[in-house]
Amino acid sequence: MALKTPEEFVQSLADLDLEIYLFGEKVDDYVNHPLIRPSINCIAMTYELARKPEFEGLMLATSHLTGKKVNRFAHIHQSTEDLVKKVKMQRLLGQKTGSCFQRCVGMDAINALYSVTYEIDQARGSDYHERFKSYVRFLQDEDLVADGAMTDPKGDRGLPPSQQTDPDLFLHIVERRDDGIVVRGAKAHQTGACNSHEIIVMPTQAMREGDEDYAVSFSIPANAPGVFYIYGRQSCDTRKIEENELDVGNAQYGGQEALMIFDNVFVPWDRVYMAGEIEFSGALVERFAGFHRQSYGGCKSGVGDVLIGAAALAADYNGVAKASHIKDKLVEMNHLNETLFACGVACSAEGVRMPAGNYQIDMLLANVCKQNVTRFPYEIARLAEDIAGGLMVTMPSAQDLFGEKTGPWVEKFLLAQCDTPTVDRLRVLRLVENLTIGAGAVGYRTESMHGAGSPQAQRIMIARQANMQHKKDLAKEIAGIGRPVEAQKDKLRKPTSVK
Amino acid sequence: MALKTPEEFVQSLADLDLEIYLFGEKVDDYVNHPLIRPSINCIAMTYELARKPEFEGLMLATSHLTGKKVNRFAHIHQSTEDLVKKVKMQRLLGQKTGSCFQRCVGMDAINALYSVTYEIDQARGSDYHERFKSYVRFLQDEDLVADGAMTDPKGDRGLPPSQQTDPDLFLHIVERRDDGIVVRGAKAHQTGACNSHEIIVMPTQAMREGDEDYAVSFSIPANAPGVFYIYGRQSCDTRKIEENELDVGNAQYGGQEALMIFDNVFVPWDRVYMAGEIEFSGALVERFAGFHRQSYGGCKSGVGDVLIGAAALAADYNGVAKASHIKDKLVEMNHLNETLFACGVACSAEGVRMPAGNYQIDMLLANVCKQNVTRFPYEIARLAEDIAGGLMVTMPSAQDLFGEKTGPWVEKFLLAQCDTPTVDRLRVLRLVENLTIGAGAVGYRTESMHGAGSPQAQRIMIARQANMQHKKDLAKEIAGIGRPVEAQKDKLRKPTSVK
Amino acid sequence: MALKTPEEFVQSLADLDLEIYLFGEKVDDYVNHPLIRPSINCIAMTYELARKPEFEGLMLATSHLTGKKVNRFAHIHQSTEDLVKKVKMQRLLGQKTGSCFQRCVGMDAINALYSVTYEIDQARGSDYHERFKSYVRFLQDEDLVADGAMTDPKGDRGLPPSQQTDPDLFLHIVERRDDGIVVRGAKAHQTGACNSHEIIVMPTQAMREGDEDYAVSFSIPANAPGVFYIYGRQSCDTRKIEENELDVGNAQYGGQEALMIFDNVFVPWDRVYMAGEIEFSGALVERFAGFHRQSYGGCKSGVGDVLIGAAALAADYNGVAKASHIKDKLVEMNHLNETLFACGVACSAEGVRMPAGNYQIDMLLANVCKQNVTRFPYEIARLAEDIAGGLMVTMPSAQDLFGEKTGPWVEKFLLAQCDTPTVDRLRVLRLVENLTIGAGAVGYRTESMHGAGSPQAQRIMIARQANMQHKKDLAKEIAGIGRPVEAQKDKLRKPTSVK
Amino acid sequence: MALKTPEEFVQSLADLDLEIYLFGEKVDDYVNHPLIRPSINCIAMTYELARKPEFEGLMLATSHLTGKKVNRFAHIHQSTEDLVKKVKMQRLLGQKTGSCFQRCVGMDAINALYSVTYEIDQARGSDYHERFKSYVRFLQDEDLVADGAMTDPKGDRGLPPSQQTDPDLFLHIVERRDDGIVVRGAKAHQTGACNSHEIIVMPTQAMREGDEDYAVSFSIPANAPGVFYIYGRQSCDTRKIEENELDVGNAQYGGQEALMIFDNVFVPWDRVYMAGEIEFSGALVERFAGFHRQSYGGCKSGVGDVLIGAAALAADYNGVAKASHIKDKLVEMNHLNETLFACGVACSAEGVRMPAGNYQIDMLLANVCKQNVTRFPYEIARLAEDIAGGLMVTMPSAQDLFGEKTGPWVEKFLLAQCDTPTVDRLRVLRLVENLTIGAGAVGYRTESMHGAGSPQAQRIMIARQANMQHKKDLAKEIAGIGRPVEAQKDKLRKPTSVK
Repeated sequence: MALKTPEEFVQSLADLDLEIYLFGEKVDDYVNHPLIRPSINCIAMTYELARKPEFEGLMLATSHLTGKKVNRFAHIHQSTEDLVKKVKMQRLLGQKTGSCFQRCVGMDAINALYSVTYEIDQARGSDYHERFKSYVRFLQDEDLVADGAMTDPKGDRGLPPSQQTDPDLFLHIVERRDDGIVVRGAKAHQTGACNSHEIIVMPTQAMREGDEDYAVSFSIPANAPGVFYIYGRQSCDTRKIEENELDVGNAQYGGQEALMIFDNVFVPWDRVYMAGEIEFSGALVERFAGFHRQSYGGCKSGVGDVLIGAAALAADYNGVAKASHIKDKLVEMNHLNETLFACGVACSAEGVRMPAGNYQIDMLLANVCKQNVTRFPYEIARLAEDIAGGLMVTMPSAQDLFGEKTGPWVEKFLLAQCDTPTVDRLRVLRLVENLTIGAGAVGYRTESMHGAGSPQAQRIMIARQANMQHKKDLAKEIAGIGRPVEAQKDKLRKPTSVK
Repeated sequence: MALKTPEEFVQSLADLDLEIYLFGEKVDDYVNHPLIRPSINCIAMTYELARKPEFEGLMLATSHLTGKKVNRFAHIHQSTEDLVKKVKMQRLLGQKTGSCFQRCVGMDAINALYSVTYEIDQARGSDYHERFKSYVRFLQDEDLVADGAMTDPKGDRGLPPSQQTDPDLFLHIVERRDDGIVVRGAKAHQTGACNSHEIIVMPTQAMREGDEDYAVSFSIPANAPGVFYIYGRQSCDTRKIEENELDVGNAQYGGQEALMIFDNVFVPWDRVYMAGEIEFSGALVERFAGFHRQSYGGCKSGVGDVLIGAAALAADYNGVAKASHIKDKLVEMNHLNETLFACGVACSAEGVRMPAGNYQIDMLLANVCKQNVTRFPYEIARLAEDIAGGLMVTMPSAQDLFGEKTGPWVEKFLLAQCDTPTVDRLRVLRLVENLTIGAGAVGYRTESMHGAGSPQAQRIMIARQANMQHKKDLAKEIAGIGRPVEAQKDKLRKPTSVK
Repeated sequence: MALKTPEEFVQSLADLDLEIYLFGEKVDDYVNHPLIRPSINCIAMTYELARKPEFEGLMLATSHLTGKKVNRFAHIHQSTEDLVKKVKMQRLLGQKTGSCFQRCVGMDAINALYSVTYEIDQARGSDYHERFKSYVRFLQDEDLVADGAMTDPKGDRGLPPSQQTDPDLFLHIVERRDDGIVVRGAKAHQTGACNSHEIIVMPTQAMREGDEDYAVSFSIPANAPGVFYIYGRQSCDTRKIEENELDVGNAQYGGQEALMIFDNVFVPWDRVYMAGEIEFSGALVERFAGFHRQSYGGCKSGVGDVLIGAAALAADYNGVAKASHIKDKLVEMNHLNETLFACGVACSAEGVRMPAGNYQIDMLLANVCKQNVTRFPYEIARLAEDIAGGLMVTMPSAQDLFGEKTGPWVEKFLLAQCDTPTVDRLRVLRLVENLTIGAGAVGYRTESMHGAGSPQAQRIMIARQANMQHKKDLAKEIAGIGRPVEAQKDKLRKPTSVK
Repeated sequence: MALKTPEEFVQSLADLDLEIYLFGEKVDDYVNHPLIRPSINCIAMTYELARKPEFEGLMLATSHLTGKKVNRFAHIHQSTEDLVKKVKMQRLLGQKTGSCFQRCVGMDAINALYSVTYEIDQARGSDYHERFKSYVRFLQDEDLVADGAMTDPKGDRGLPPSQQTDPDLFLHIVERRDDGIVVRGAKAHQTGACNSHEIIVMPTQAMREGDEDYAVSFSIPANAPGVFYIYGRQSCDTRKIEENELDVGNAQYGGQEALMIFDNVFVPWDRVYMAGEIEFSGALVERFAGFHRQSYGGCKSGVGDVLIGAAALAADYNGVAKASHIKDKLVEMNHLNETLFACGVACSAEGVRMPAGNYQIDMLLANVCKQNVTRFPYEIARLAEDIAGGLMVTMPSAQDLFGEKTGPWVEKFLLAQCDTPTVDRLRVLRLVENLTIGAGAVGYRTESMHGAGSPQAQRIMIARQANMQHKKDLAKEIAGIGRPVEAQKDKLRKPTSVK
């Protein structure tokens, strides 16, 4: 089957007839809902660019399963070059959408599951890996979007899943049948849940004995019976449903998160990839998180490019582009943004081949990458607000710009300091607003903080991966720790102690 | 006249019948408009606390003009103790409103004008100071709110006011009459413009020869003919006009900025405090800015207290309050917040008596204070987002929390990890959202950046105030610069050079 | 008795015939030892400035015990004005010495003990306070330097003093006699130990039951039998004993630390101020630390002034003073340095009167002050190194500058870019080196980190002092926590949960 | 010829009989001078590791000129893999020496000259490239160390080389002869100058018309007539010549910088690689700097490993390793250190093939790498000082540790909190001291700041490389800049302006 056009993608999404709730009510024509559509446009962009020859190298890959060209989002990485290209594809999409484009979660899920299912089979003699390969082939052949679903509501952080007062606070198997399993629970903060064809579920943490029913991974169609979605609110979300687009800042693209609920959902065995193998749940979480932490080195630097460009434009339109402090702040923004990208590239270039044959990022550097992502976008945003000036948060509405009484006055006093029309000055300030304290800030700031794991999660991984013993040994050798004092040039006597 | 009650204040504001435009249309009953009212509530709080005995020491002061107790916002500082109390009053109000409460601008304006009018009179033999004292007495006696208006649209930053293509880009005198002056122009980013009784206008920068008509300062009633307001948009502003208050985060209080337009406004001479004295325009700007930079050490640390408290509550409700990294982040937030307060206190305690008899803050430390304000609230906000968790930006709307289908599921999965109802967990997350990427972020972040002058303005002042020559002399003395080489212990010979 | 001249001070110090070990040997004429003398010069400066009329306001205070003018270092603070003056005196001395001047420890010790002895007496009916007042009067009348000694070696951090394998790892009472006590142990890192007339010992931490012998405070002459000192090494210390002074950077002044050993030292009862009152040991530590954390807002900003001046001179001599990035870095250095000073002033201005009648700093702000001191000098130093340029660490020795063969070449190639002789360019670079990676860095960096308690100690205090409950209450009020849902405008129904 | 043993290297260096001045006198047996030898040991380590099979992959490369295995330091990079291996080799050597190991400058010089000489020949028809290839083959075949010399004294920064009052302030051709050229001038801050066999000279900046004699590049033996060296002082340098090694911290290894003087030095034509081609001088500087900025991502992260290990050991020996804040600081140090490494890897992995066939790093990312190096080692050092504790700068000398009177007391009070002898606790603290404020800090801090160009140099390159126009275009597209207002959904009318 050929790669879908963006229009075909949107139609296929509409055909699913998903059960989505927004502001307390079920949304009917969600692909045309003005608050939801911008997030669908992001995914559509992943289809659009895949069909453009100039981006083929980044957007497409040759499937190791079929030998066909497939969208890289459905590809299993076969080399470090693939890993680097993934990051560059993500930067490209961040640049084109100025937003979280939401399709990475599924890509990172299939790449994590690919090696974990292989290793479960090696250890347990199961056949998860073959099932899973079939599923990946299906995604590739049908050119589908899969969402990866990991984060459970978790309830009391001090208790294991099976000890919670409500057993559903972690998604779990409630019934094992001959033909499949029945699951119950929820996945929270699901980026892109409502614009995916498929949902891939994974456990949220390493599971221990007694929590076998919670060590579960599977895939389902997004419209499987019992599945429904409660759409999350974003800062300034309702600007998208206002009459005009100027005040939105980024009118075409946006992010999306939902609370996804599984009310006794049936999953046939051939779509189950883990069902009780607690000893592999930790590896699955770590690998998915690792891939996703790499991702942020790409997508966030792409969005960063847009914000840097917007700040530079704002400086132009404000008439201050030549001030040395403005130029220096733009350098700093670029410096920080490229550091994120560098970390994304580095963990990719240092990737390793897994037993299953696919390639995985360097775990330490991927966590370092994400840890920087929890910091630098905030500073880039701060600098953008500095450059943009106060008008960003005090300027009148679009209605005032075009109002009979107010319009001429707004035009008179807020004119841009160049040939650009005033309306464009306001547009770019609205874009900076969008990315720093508006709807886009959800993706650029908060998601940078918590997506793919909160900062502390990376610190734990860095602590684990840093090989402190090796570093201590290096220091011991240089400091001469343990070297006999007699061996010193001066033959000093051994110290004794006073009691 | 007695101190107004909050209700009397609101009524007096309604009586003004201000001409305010919002979303392109004139607002009729603005004191009851749900989008505007929260900002009016902030000012009302300055009246409410002034009547509470427990806050009398901070909220009231004894007028040096009348000997009566007056609201400190209308007081001319008579001591460093007054200056310190000002900062503490501002912290208190920040704590009570969790918002910019908008009444400081006028206070800082009258204190700057007090000394500058005195000095103009000393130099020029004019009688501005007496006029101005009468005006201050009027504000005190009538218990009125004055707004200070300084920032002009400015147009091309490289040109002086009189050389702009449109002469109105800086507010200026268009006619000098026997009974007064006529002015034209605009003031942008006017915090609290639409909830003040009076407007005090000041020039926006030091003026040079040729720009005499732009060196103008005066006061007018907020409803003077020819004055009207275009209300600025804020992030998430329309949540305030949604049906329920949960999603607002801070439903009672909020900030306000407007573009204030002066379409040929008449000002009688007894309300004019500068009209051409260009050599004093710079001092007026610096002093107003200095006082206002002090202010931020108070108000922003008060709002910081609310955000720190909200983050701590979020940690409680999320069930993670005991994690060492959470506790450490709260320490850091407090540390940064108290540093801001310390700078506000220090520039006050180091205040100096002016020739006019009033007290002014230490200029260097006030600029240092504000410079920190352009940084630390951003980091405090970042840490608050870290502690709050991703739910802050992915949680469903209030309608979903209470929806027939969705409500029980939201309740089930998002329950707070303590006796607190789930709705309260969402409330506190909405408050963190409000202050970090919502309507409150306009005041807590962007205003911290640009209010009272953008960061670079403080850097210029720090450079000017830092007395580098003294520091160089200290270093010279210690390094022995210029000390004859012969004077060295070793009597080393003087160096020569090879050609 | 009149205030001592610097020369009288040095002679009085020499007369003590202290037992000091350096490089494994007892030092005979320590006041003239080139490695030690610079630290003595610092104390001498506290005598010299005290006799200069222009500094009288800062350097002298009126004793509340005798009504006489005394050196402020021996004064008990009687007002917040005294507290502020203390900080300014410290900044002055930092500016004059470019070094830790070592006399603050004793000043902070007497001010802490003053209120604690009073409170012990109130609780226990003892007479420590009168004894201690006599002692302070003695210090004032004789114009003496006292060192404050707090830090024990501590051994195993997980065990209380009395449980250590070696009981001496915390200084303790080994015998209680009719005429006094005998103590044993050591105090480490003792700043200024070898240039003080008197030593005031305090416990190192809050003591618990069983550790009564460790809750001990007393004073002794620095040459008491059984007391001796092992002098600590500093970076570049031996440059002071090289033949010429150029390479020292700061040839006149420097810091000093020693390991002070108490080998069964007798203390008469009238010099004992705590002997077993474990419940007051914590307060003593906190108050001393609080005063000392205030101190750093003064002294380190004074040294910072010297480093800023040196960096500015280096920029002049390097010929790069006009570069915008250089100017901006100097602004940043000043900004950070003034923030430290502001914190020192603020905790002083917010000081409180203690039951004993003396004034104590605001504990929260004093800890905030010191926490900033653990950070900003490092950044100021980094910026100074940036401005100074690489020559700071690659330039030849003084001998090369004056060498027969090398001198003319060094002169030729390293000439300063102004009228200043090349030797002065090198002098100022050596001063920057001294303060950033040389002997002065011990005081400016490491002491800023660990003096008056390591960073974590301040964080613990900030956590304790921050009144989180109040902040949570503020947030609750604004977020509407606990407000009945029915009270909302929309009368939304109460949420229920799905099982 | 086979790879030299470390001993053979030292002998070959001794055989050169270099003219080195130290403390004003010529050094005779420099390879055995205790102050110089540690820096020679660093180079010796590059020979030692090259002969160990386990490091062969990193330390050796296959020469594209001869097909033989050569030391990678003399290799011309043939692939991005080579570039990545270079960074890893540098990290390894940083780990083994805990110091700047000084051999990178020559490696980066030959790789920059390789492509530039090729491009000069293409443009000018000269034969520099062949000459240069012969020279590289010579270095490889003879297994020699070359130093790269770039930085001139520069004099007045505002004047071009030929306009300086002293023409020698930039190294230049003073005579062009048939058999070669005669040059005069100096190169400052020359890392590793006195332990290299060969010196490769390059211009210090882009040259303009009139400065042809300054656009000169060539190589000479380190002992060429007219060349001599004035050895630079480092913090704590003389500890290396004290009687015992404990107080040195890193007794085996250290850095070295010298002022290298060219007093009319003859260079035969076959060793000249640029002589007047001003239009290529800028490219040579940029490429050398680019390679050298990459280098710092390797070597400094290697030294960082040692410092992290030392801090961790100090925590162990201090008995505080389990404190959560200590563990978190170690995580932070690792995080920052790995970010440096990631940037080094990224600019390598993104390397590009040059027309000459060799590979060059990505210029933007290499500059980003170095810019981080000007910051993070400072913060890592600060954290190390925090963990190490104050004892690092107050502990007694080695002589005191072993002194008859003092030894037992030092031993008693400073004992390590583990099975490790106290002497080892002191050793590791001395190592931390060495790297943070001692001799090692010259390499780890100041060189990180200024080596390979000061921070501002990287900012200029980042500004140039960041492609701001592309970023502005991205922002324009998303903000809808220039989109006709009519095209908006609401068909709002075009704004007009009031006059």
